[in-house]
Amino acid sequence: LCRAANLIVREDAVGNLFARWVGSDPSLAAIGTGSHTDAIPFAGAYDGTVGVLGGLEAIRALQRAGFQPRRSIELLMFTSEEPTRFGIGCLGSRLLSGSLQAGRAKTLSDKEGQSLDHVRTAAGFTGTLDDVVLPEGYYEAFLELHVEQGPVLEARNIPVGVVTAIAAPASLRIWLDGEGGHAGTVLMPQRHDAFLAASEISLAVESVVKSTGAIDTVGTVGVCDVFPGAVNSIPSRVKIEIDVRDIDGARRDAVLRAIDEACGRVTERRGVKLKKEVLNADPPAHSGRRALNALNQSCERCGISPFPLPSRAYHDSLFMSRITEVGMLFVRCREGV
Amino acid sequence: LCRAANLIVREDAVGNLFARWVGSDPSLAAIGTGSHTDAIPFAGAYDGTVGVLGGLEAIRALQRAGFQPRRSIELLMFTSEEPTRFGIGCLGSRLLSGSLQAGRAKTLSDKEGQSLDHVRTAAGFTGTLDDVVLPEGYYEAFLELHVEQGPVLEARNIPVGVVTAIAAPASLRIWLDGEGGHAGTVLMPQRHDAFLAASEISLAVESVVKSTGAIDTVGTVGVCDVFPGAVNSIPSRVKIEIDVRDIDGARRDAVLRAIDEACGRVTERRGVKLKKEVLNADPPAHSGRRALNALNQSCERCGISPFPLPSRAYHDSLFMSRITEVGMLFVRCREGV
Repeated sequence: LCRAANLIVREDAVGNLFARWVGSDPSLAAIGTGSHTDAIPFAGAYDGTVGVLGGLEAIRALQRAGFQPRRSIELLMFTSEEPTRFGIGCLGSRLLSGSLQAGRAKTLSDKEGQSLDHVRTAAGFTGTLDDVVLPEGYYEAFLELHVEQGPVLEARNIPVGVVTAIAAPASLRIWLDGEGGHAGTVLMPQRHDAFLAASEISLAVESVVKSTGAIDTVGTVGVCDVFPGAVNSIPSRVKIEIDVRDIDGARRDAVLRAIDEACGRVTERRGVKLKKEVLNADPPAHSGRRALNALNQSCERCGISPFPLPSRAYHDSLFMSRITEVGMLFVRCREGV
Repeated sequence: LCRAANLIVREDAVGNLFARWVGSDPSLAAIGTGSHTDAIPFAGAYDGTVGVLGGLEAIRALQRAGFQPRRSIELLMFTSEEPTRFGIGCLGSRLLSGSLQAGRAKTLSDKEGQSLDHVRTAAGFTGTLDDVVLPEGYYEAFLELHVEQGPVLEARNIPVGVVTAIAAPASLRIWLDGEGGHAGTVLMPQRHDAFLAASEISLAVESVVKSTGAIDTVGTVGVCDVFPGAVNSIPSRVKIEIDVRDIDGARRDAVLRAIDEACGRVTERRGVKLKKEVLNADPPAHSGRRALNALNQSCERCGISPFPLPSRAYHDSLFMSRITEVGMLFVRCREGV
């Protein structure tokens, strides 16, 4: 499809796909657009895909209209936005924006111990991870079209929304080590139950997040693995994973500190040991002024009054914002898919 | 070993093993003793086994001393006391005491869907499950020797304890159904997080159990499975399993009612649905007066002042108590194993 539209296609060493419509002045920084085509189960047919096909269709519509761009326009299909096989999402955009260093990326391996480097070369991608990062000034701006995945546009029956900021995501993995034992024989005062500590910490996450008073602060404990996990065994070890997001980075960090304090109180009182791993704590992204203006004007030209909203999910644009001005357009979706 | 001691050995249809030293009046009900030889991981070398080998050694010691019993003495090795492959422990003693009906036992299957009937016949046990139940009056009394698995005898440095009662065990499986969603996009006030409901219920179990004020009441949430179980997904469904025990059956049942009430409050407030399954809720067993007297006298004859204590773990004797008078002797063990 890209080649049929006279786009020049290339792939980088990790599988990001670039399709460039060369402008009349190829020396200028390009305008990028695109998204991802991988998706988690039940994400629906549009997550990511609408941004890749939408970008291609935008290019083809401009071509049909006889438009001749001065700057090159480049369609991007990012690799591994959703899959967390190597522990993190947005692998492609993290690497090409330099948010993830090639050196660190080479140390990543999956659950079976296969390294990212092994997996990508086995999949036929040549070159080295060091080559993935884009040169400075490669893009003049980056725009992403995406389904909202939230309830706002659907509830208000608005077709599109202009994203003002992308929430700052952070995720933590916490190991709690207590003392196991037989559920019948260890008396209650002698217990150091790792799962009850995890329960208190999880409820503290909710309460700390709610106490900011800001609707944009969200926090979730999505993983809780209990060992040994038998009805007649006191849990000796529990792993929980916590996700905290906010469009205000400082407020997000204050929540993380309050969670730390709650962990300290709970583990001391219950005599349980804690080990914490910060999986990621990325800063938020704010949309560029020019990108916002362009998107708002486009909405008005189509007879839609521009509707601003933040993105609480994160997207490849969060990482593209490290190297260029970004803008996102959200499309209304039914029940988030 | 049993045959070498002139015992008549038979196996029943589910693998319970009987070795009888025929008394001078074989028409009288026998005295039973024994335990199990299976064990959970890390249970140590003595759990159960000490009662089987100890029973055999007691018989051999009596034989060496030239004792001639009037009643037959029968050594029992119960099948599947520990394994919960079919969802319950003490499978052998439940079946032969009629605590578990053969009809119900035939409906049991393991995680792979293999029925108990299939597994036991594949293992070479003939006859039908209906034949396992013992005829009325089969035993005059049943005595079990077992390691304590608790800290009392070790802490007080007492070699043996006479068990006065076996705690009434109950276990519940609870399914909580909330609403899933993306950890970034669903705002806090709109959430129905099944894991936070599970956390509150688990803490309520602890608080209800502690509030009885009795050291003999224990309660544990040993299983918590979270679906879908991803750091960026709000838990939509959680399964927890609760174990509650007490040597006072009425107090145990009051705890179960208080847990039900807490479940009702939590699920209503959080908008989460609950499904409860009572896996078992057995009554407690109290040791027989004659068995207690015999054990106390034996202690005194050995120069040990009799030390009474309850069993908070349950044992095959709990089910044997349904058909005959029981007594248990606990042996001191280091760190419960």
